[in-house]
Amino acid sequence: MSAVPMNFESQPLDMNLWSQNHLARVEQALSQWVGDGAPAGLGDAMRYAVLDGGKRLRPLLVLAAYEAVCSGAPASAVVDDAALRAGLDEAALRAACAVELIHAYSLVHDDMPCMDNDVLRRGKPTVHVQFGEAQALLAGDALQAFAFELLTPDNTLIPAATQATLCRLLARAAGSAGMAGGQAIDLASVGVALTEDQLRQMHRLKTGALLQGSVLMGAACGHAVGEAYQALSDYGAAMGLAFQVVDDILDVVADSATLGKTAGKDAAADKPTYVSLLGLARAQAYAQELLAEAHAALARSGLPDTRALAALADMVVRRSH
Amino acid sequence: MSAVPMNFESQPLDMNLWSQNHLARVEQALSQWVGDGAPAGLGDAMRYAVLDGGKRLRPLLVLAAYEAVCSGAPASAVVDDAALRAGLDEAALRAACAVELIHAYSLVHDDMPCMDNDVLRRGKPTVHVQFGEAQALLAGDALQAFAFELLTPDNTLIPAATQATLCRLLARAAGSAGMAGGQAIDLASVGVALTEDQLRQMHRLKTGALLQGSVLMGAACGHAVGEAYQALSDYGAAMGLAFQVVDDILDVVADSATLGKTAGKDAAADKPTYVSLLGLARAQAYAQELLAEAHAALARSGLPDTRALAALADMVVRRSH
Repeated sequence: MSAVPMNFESQPLDMNLWSQNHLARVEQALSQWVGDGAPAGLGDAMRYAVLDGGKRLRPLLVLAAYEAVCSGAPASAVVDDAALRAGLDEAALRAACAVELIHAYSLVHDDMPCMDNDVLRRGKPTVHVQFGEAQALLAGDALQAFAFELLTPDNTLIPAATQATLCRLLARAAGSAGMAGGQAIDLASVGVALTEDQLRQMHRLKTGALLQGSVLMGAACGHAVGEAYQALSDYGAAMGLAFQVVDDILDVVADSATLGKTAGKDAAADKPTYVSLLGLARAQAYAQELLAEAHAALARSGLPDTRALAALADMVVRRSH
Repeated sequence: MSAVPMNFESQPLDMNLWSQNHLARVEQALSQWVGDGAPAGLGDAMRYAVLDGGKRLRPLLVLAAYEAVCSGAPASAVVDDAALRAGLDEAALRAACAVELIHAYSLVHDDMPCMDNDVLRRGKPTVHVQFGEAQALLAGDALQAFAFELLTPDNTLIPAATQATLCRLLARAAGSAGMAGGQAIDLASVGVALTEDQLRQMHRLKTGALLQGSVLMGAACGHAVGEAYQALSDYGAAMGLAFQVVDDILDVVADSATLGKTAGKDAAADKPTYVSLLGLARAQAYAQELLAEAHAALARSGLPDTRALAALADMVVRRSH
């Protein structure tokens, strides 16, 4: 190994290949773990909710953040201790799956009749349409519990402190000061004129917290500290908000077939969005600003290889669904 | 301190005083923590669901198991290390509150129209009646996340390994191989003739897993190992199943005013119960057998003071609601 850090940034990353490789690991792990040991009907509903070809953005963020931190780790600290490295690799894969379980459970519950009452998700009948409301409610509940189970396996090389940190980050990202809190604000905001600050706060919690949490969990798996951790946190905040701004834009400009879910729903439901607040052109410009913020945060992280994180932020802003 | 262990068992425990003291700590902690930092509507629903005068059996089991283990710990290991002892005391209180949050969330979701459709709980309107279905769904989800947040505080004296173990035990007790799994079996069993083995398995998961999990979490806070841990696990299993047998009996023999919820529901819903399977007299005898099993497990734990655990098992079997 060269003593001089390589300048990774100057080399192009084959992001398709990177995504393929990492997605394959995540899909294989989810397929192996989800629903295992659950009673038949519940296990089927859990697997249906998770193994459905989502974009897996959150798992990819975990793995990209973990690799970015490892790229900057002193060889003596992590890379040369094979058992620790194996434990941290396992932690990153489990964290990647755990955030996806939280995301999947939130979609199952969001789609239920008492919430958004959606019958279509990623082009398929939603879980409550397929399995009934009671089973959908239980499947969501069980997926949330299973996320924490995945982070705390028996007989593992994952350091206990890493397990505890991952549970802490995930619980906060998912809970009343994170995703669930944002959904509650969303509930209360139908038909209400929000200021831009209020809208930003709602979105930071509702979707931003788990996206940022994914980055932080990856960073925690690599034992990131100090400036690098803070920069990745800033990256996660900007990218997470950009995701929601683009979601608001796509709800207006895309059709249901491309989205895999009902388009134009926010306007129909009289929900405040970035487009309704800023207009389409300013919303698009704001998404670009946030993307630039995300890139700037990566640049100041001091980490030698943040190419995958940079590419994921680009994907978030340039996606068509 | 005497070098000869005191024979605690020969001294009567004032269980009313013990419960009062421990309940006061749990109520104070729940009142301080639940809903803190949540958006207003969500926080109100979370607090309504939790701060409602439940029996707090699960928190008391955590604290009683923790104290039983501490009563047998070598002074050098735990009692004399003030910082460790403070951390473990805090862990036990947080674990006590965390299991209650899981219990509370399960009641909120269970009561919803797509599940049991109950409008009365502990003599008050259920959460979805009071706050609407969407808010009830979110409050349950947020309470589950908050349970894991409570177990993993920042800047704490709780050892990381204890935090990880508590998250592991709670996630398993709550998830698809525990409470949620039991509820799924329950859903599928309406109108179905179960064998006694199948009924036992359903109840072991549905209510037994979290009751046993409470005991195990208390034991883990005291760093119990080996025989003592196994005996407490056996105690938890017998006591947990006894709880459900008595629940089935009370559904038949008690009235709604005493229960604080609708009596006779299981029979009306054509749900299999211990009474429908064994008849009332044999179900009552079975509850006594399980109580004896629970006491026998405590006797072989080797722990000097299991009086509170013994009294809690008695309460479980002799309760009138």
